[in-house]
Amino acid sequence: MTQPLAPGSVIGILGGGQLGRMLATAAAELGFDAHIFDPESDCPAGRAAARVWSAPWDDDGAIQAFAGKCDVITFEWENVPASAIDAAESRAPVRPGRKSLELTQDRLVEKSFIREAGCQTVDFAEVNSLADLENAVARIGRPSILKTRRFGYDGKGQAVVKAGSGLAEAWASIGGQPAILEAFAPFQRELSVVAARTVNGDLKTFPLAENQHSGGILRVSTAPAQASAGLEADALKIAEAIGNGLEHVGVFAVELFDVGGQLIVNEIAPRVHNSGHWTMDACACGQFEQHIRAVAGWPLGNTAPHSACEMTNLIGEDVSPWLDLASEPDVCLHLYGKRDTRPGRKMGHINRLFPLER
Amino acid sequence: MTQPLAPGSVIGILGGGQLGRMLATAAAELGFDAHIFDPESDCPAGRAAARVWSAPWDDDGAIQAFAGKCDVITFEWENVPASAIDAAESRAPVRPGRKSLELTQDRLVEKSFIREAGCQTVDFAEVNSLADLENAVARIGRPSILKTRRFGYDGKGQAVVKAGSGLAEAWASIGGQPAILEAFAPFQRELSVVAARTVNGDLKTFPLAENQHSGGILRVSTAPAQASAGLEADALKIAEAIGNGLEHVGVFAVELFDVGGQLIVNEIAPRVHNSGHWTMDACACGQFEQHIRAVAGWPLGNTAPHSACEMTNLIGEDVSPWLDLASEPDVCLHLYGKRDTRPGRKMGHINRLFPLER
Repeated sequence: MTQPLAPGSVIGILGGGQLGRMLATAAAELGFDAHIFDPESDCPAGRAAARVWSAPWDDDGAIQAFAGKCDVITFEWENVPASAIDAAESRAPVRPGRKSLELTQDRLVEKSFIREAGCQTVDFAEVNSLADLENAVARIGRPSILKTRRFGYDGKGQAVVKAGSGLAEAWASIGGQPAILEAFAPFQRELSVVAARTVNGDLKTFPLAENQHSGGILRVSTAPAQASAGLEADALKIAEAIGNGLEHVGVFAVELFDVGGQLIVNEIAPRVHNSGHWTMDACACGQFEQHIRAVAGWPLGNTAPHSACEMTNLIGEDVSPWLDLASEPDVCLHLYGKRDTRPGRKMGHINRLFPLER
Repeated sequence: MTQPLAPGSVIGILGGGQLGRMLATAAAELGFDAHIFDPESDCPAGRAAARVWSAPWDDDGAIQAFAGKCDVITFEWENVPASAIDAAESRAPVRPGRKSLELTQDRLVEKSFIREAGCQTVDFAEVNSLADLENAVARIGRPSILKTRRFGYDGKGQAVVKAGSGLAEAWASIGGQPAILEAFAPFQRELSVVAARTVNGDLKTFPLAENQHSGGILRVSTAPAQASAGLEADALKIAEAIGNGLEHVGVFAVELFDVGGQLIVNEIAPRVHNSGHWTMDACACGQFEQHIRAVAGWPLGNTAPHSACEMTNLIGEDVSPWLDLASEPDVCLHLYGKRDTRPGRKMGHINRLFPLER
């Protein structure tokens, strides 16, 4: 299918968290019906969609039944099991496709792909044993970061190897799983570029965002980041190399380190991304609409911002002063409909708008 | 209940058309669950909400069951039967309240209220018979407009009385229902002000929009309208007089005639309004979010636009070139998820954004 999906078509979304919810809302705005698949029937996205399908991820029959009602399927989460993608693909196109998942679900495969695509990464080494870790640290040095190859997010499955850190402890702390040791980048700041690519290979980027993390979780994104035209052009080249290399369809994000004006790729998210939430209120077409456009085979929307924005995540109890936040005149408040507030859980975000410096 | 509703609360919406759909989406963005009541289970709003309750409008038991699950109830449509409001009110607060409905469901009552509130209207007369119509035309003159007192919208239930028009035909054309004859206002342009009022009586207006109708249906709204500070201040005064008079809670719109710089009130819509659709993409807080904030007992959002906007309704086959519209860079496309395209049916709208002249 390369024809654009007509309004009224069904967009299937694997995963019912906040990203799925914001995708569902964007789909509705364009006249689509969103169907959500999630093991939890009361998931946030299911409560803003036409239909929710609930079954375990390994229930291939349930996924096929869901997919049979969809005109295209996408996902909010890159760790969707391969078997679920297989089951979905038997009934409807899945966008982005398998390559985007296979090359980003595993940090070692991902870093190797990034280099092959002609982009820079930090130095890294494969670690399958304590002996591997010892050799890797001897080569890469300290500080460095040990990360599980799979299923890590928001700082989970990571251990920092500092001067004096015990390697056996680091290895044990990540459960002795297949891992990668990465050099620390001596970066001045963390940036990200959110891009979208169509079925036909058209690609557009939003302006660079500057990101502040804490405890492994994104806290604040400021966009458009202060950046020279040259740096924006470098980011576009990186997005093109990666988007084309993945044959990606939809939105993806590339996390970058700015090391003295050189952009080093940290990681790829083959989906809408927290550092793109600012686009919802600062651009005519935000990242969620952009993703729906791309997977529906539509042309991409305008990525030029009309406002500058500071996005702040509301994590855990950060959401408690929701009434005060709702009272601030230049704040756009987004809450995700999660039933319980838990430490470290993303409950919402705020977009604080500013006039754009032209 | 005067406490603001916490995120996670349920906003009930009577009516599942496009206004209900856009309200449901706005509610989801603020972390609420929207429940829709509509006789049609496959209605547009039901497909973007947490739950849809479907039964005839006169099924009081069904409305009570729906209302029993809601923390507050609102409506997308001012012609909700009074019995449905009674049934809903027995279980949850309904906002806006009965007064807003009673004073706007009937054109004669509405015009009388507007005058009592200190605002100007065109000359008008009650018409309950052909003899009444003859007397009214003798006093008010031609051209004038005969309108049914109730259940008119988008130009339905109206007859223009021109030079030479047969009065018996005009009277027959509206079915001989209780009616009102209105003088024609010699207006230079049609404007509207969309306002919101909170439980506490706080009121904010969006800037004036200039509206172009055709065939009794709104086609284009341009906002902010060219207007002096004095005219904007007059519009605010009118909105305050009407909002306070209705003891309204939520968004409402006042349609105005600009007659040589004097604002004459044409009619009141006690709900979100088509001429406020431009705010969705041109303001940090659009009219749908504003309405949800007001009925939830939250403070009002910022009504200052960051962009200028031209809103164009997509009526009937206007929606056919959706792919071309989606390709225009400064167009925000909104489609309503209606299954069938029919002449005169509102299928969607586009908001074309421009830099704001400051």
